[in-house]
Amino acid sequence: MTDPRLADSAPPLSPDFVRHPKGPAITRLAVSPTMLTVTWADGLEGQFNRFWLRENEVRSGVINPVTRERDVQTEDLPEDLGLDRADHDAGGVHLHWRPDGHISRHDAGWLRGTAEGRWHPDAGLPARTTWDSSDMPEPPSFDGPPVLTDDTALRDWLTALYGYGFARLRGLPTDQGTVVEIAKRIGTIRGSNFGYSFFVETKPNPDSNAYTSAGLGAHTDLASREVQPGLQLLHCRENGCDGGASTMVDGFRLAEYLRDTDADAYDALTRLSWVFSNRHRDSDYRSTGPIVVLRPDGAISEIRFTAFLRAEPDMPASEVERAYRAVRLFGRLAADDRFVCRTPFAPGDLVIFDNRRILHGRDAFVQGKGNRRLEGCYLDTDELLSRLRVLARDTS
Amino acid sequence: MTDPRLADSAPPLSPDFVRHPKGPAITRLAVSPTMLTVTWADGLEGQFNRFWLRENEVRSGVINPVTRERDVQTEDLPEDLGLDRADHDAGGVHLHWRPDGHISRHDAGWLRGTAEGRWHPDAGLPARTTWDSSDMPEPPSFDGPPVLTDDTALRDWLTALYGYGFARLRGLPTDQGTVVEIAKRIGTIRGSNFGYSFFVETKPNPDSNAYTSAGLGAHTDLASREVQPGLQLLHCRENGCDGGASTMVDGFRLAEYLRDTDADAYDALTRLSWVFSNRHRDSDYRSTGPIVVLRPDGAISEIRFTAFLRAEPDMPASEVERAYRAVRLFGRLAADDRFVCRTPFAPGDLVIFDNRRILHGRDAFVQGKGNRRLEGCYLDTDELLSRLRVLARDTS
Repeated sequence: MTDPRLADSAPPLSPDFVRHPKGPAITRLAVSPTMLTVTWADGLEGQFNRFWLRENEVRSGVINPVTRERDVQTEDLPEDLGLDRADHDAGGVHLHWRPDGHISRHDAGWLRGTAEGRWHPDAGLPARTTWDSSDMPEPPSFDGPPVLTDDTALRDWLTALYGYGFARLRGLPTDQGTVVEIAKRIGTIRGSNFGYSFFVETKPNPDSNAYTSAGLGAHTDLASREVQPGLQLLHCRENGCDGGASTMVDGFRLAEYLRDTDADAYDALTRLSWVFSNRHRDSDYRSTGPIVVLRPDGAISEIRFTAFLRAEPDMPASEVERAYRAVRLFGRLAADDRFVCRTPFAPGDLVIFDNRRILHGRDAFVQGKGNRRLEGCYLDTDELLSRLRVLARDTS
Repeated sequence: MTDPRLADSAPPLSPDFVRHPKGPAITRLAVSPTMLTVTWADGLEGQFNRFWLRENEVRSGVINPVTRERDVQTEDLPEDLGLDRADHDAGGVHLHWRPDGHISRHDAGWLRGTAEGRWHPDAGLPARTTWDSSDMPEPPSFDGPPVLTDDTALRDWLTALYGYGFARLRGLPTDQGTVVEIAKRIGTIRGSNFGYSFFVETKPNPDSNAYTSAGLGAHTDLASREVQPGLQLLHCRENGCDGGASTMVDGFRLAEYLRDTDADAYDALTRLSWVFSNRHRDSDYRSTGPIVVLRPDGAISEIRFTAFLRAEPDMPASEVERAYRAVRLFGRLAADDRFVCRTPFAPGDLVIFDNRRILHGRDAFVQGKGNRRLEGCYLDTDELLSRLRVLARDTS
């Protein structure tokens, strides 16, 4: 091998692309045939299964040193694989194996990170805070152009987005395609039946109410899809109209409010399912589920509320009256000034929001000196999470 | 209004774009203040809530007759809305309302379809059948070119895909972009970090094992994403290599086999979570969940098995040994001739498969007279379901 990092004398590589801090000193290594136990000076203990260790060795044929994908098929490791002993030095942890007599070498920082749980999808993400209009009279706002080139500016903006569910850039160019350029700083754009990017402006023969000058009540987009788009970006290219302010509501805060004040409505919103379906000549997307989605531990995890696509109640007929009471209450609160952050769109503004948390809408507008023209696009949630992790990484 | 379908004398429109069969005659209409009950000659009874009926009236300001989106905000309907009486004629069902004295008119076929549950996301989809290699020595195969233009050919192909999880087209042109043209017959392509479409051929500095000539064990793609791509298309443009046969395994059948023969392995595969993560310089997608995903009713609904992206066991250390036993068994069975449908790729072949059900792979190949060049792309599952529904529709 020509790569000096792969020489036997080099420190072992991590099976990912992260430069893991070594952490405190290792004070104890203990083996059973099936398990390695590592103890660090701060008392943290990590347990590592035999197969886990062998399938995460970075060398040709196991973890590919170039792609860091796994080349070994786990089922090809011998059934009677066992740990004989372990030792370590500055270069990492060395494991001695039977029956094959192999010695594997592992990055000590990677073992430490594994013991700390840094690999978990939820680990290391920014804090989240719910808000109402008194907390948030306008969106968290950032200077736009640096986000196109500077990773620190990008990270600050995305951290606010993750924390509050929305964030605004100001002073961007008003060229078509700017929103796509910004979106690609995060990840892969999610196309939809409305296109790769879409243009929100009044159109003849509109296939959505979005393409009229009517007001739009608070909603999430595309609840008829199995998974709603995680992020929506809207970039204002022109605005010579009166009205048409953008409205944003933190659906998580609204759900918390109902949880605390109206147990019956909260129960109906979290446990009774509605079908959402789009009604279109060329597509027929359908989903079913509750409007407020909970995780198994009861945490509020998603809002599904494309009000104008809400279709059949997917519940016993005897539940429908209380389901409507809850939906009507939810809709009224989503229009209440207590919850609505209302801001005008200036040319060069771009708002990004978590479409699975934030309800967005707009006031009606009338054509004035000019048009109201927005360009928008979607991304999936894991594009944001991936970008936040990469920006937080120390890469080796 | 200039559209004659909207005149008072015209039959009422359906709130969707479907021409619903009227079904048997209505034999009884009964109202309570909050509910309409319709009985048909075959004994079927449907119950319809007051708000449901009023928000599904097709007229300007309620259901937009053009977009069939809802213009009325449900919370704006009066709280004391009540049904006074109902009658019907050939033109539909007429409902008399208090307090506003309004008379709403509804398509009788739409009411019948609602009572039958035709609106449910699961309704009307083709039958599904699991298979092993003795049932399926080669993929269900269809003549390719008609699918580009003929909806019946498209529907036959997609019905086989839905039923068996995979289906092949033969005799297509070998031009670049053919796979995109075919995919767009279904719906919107799902881009990924590998691009809008991707090219499976040996590459220098590959960022995935797919771009080498190595064999690939049975796997699903992108299990590190929150939602795996629902469909994958692979189009063979050139194949002058020895080896490189395509392998397909019905993951649902494999899971059924384990359910019936090894309860401990099935339990471990369905209840113990693994993190999947990609290890890439520019992305860090992570998911966590079981390898065999069950619906709440216990039905097998998805396989998540990008073997080379399987990362940390997200479970108590005491469970890891049995989790590995199950994964290793699953991997061995996925390579077993009992389950593997193995077919060579000829230029002009295109296979489509359900990436959340079918495990795909390939044999290793050696460069022969020419290269092995595939172009592929992804779509989400609901693009397939939407297209099947639209193709089955009688539109008005």
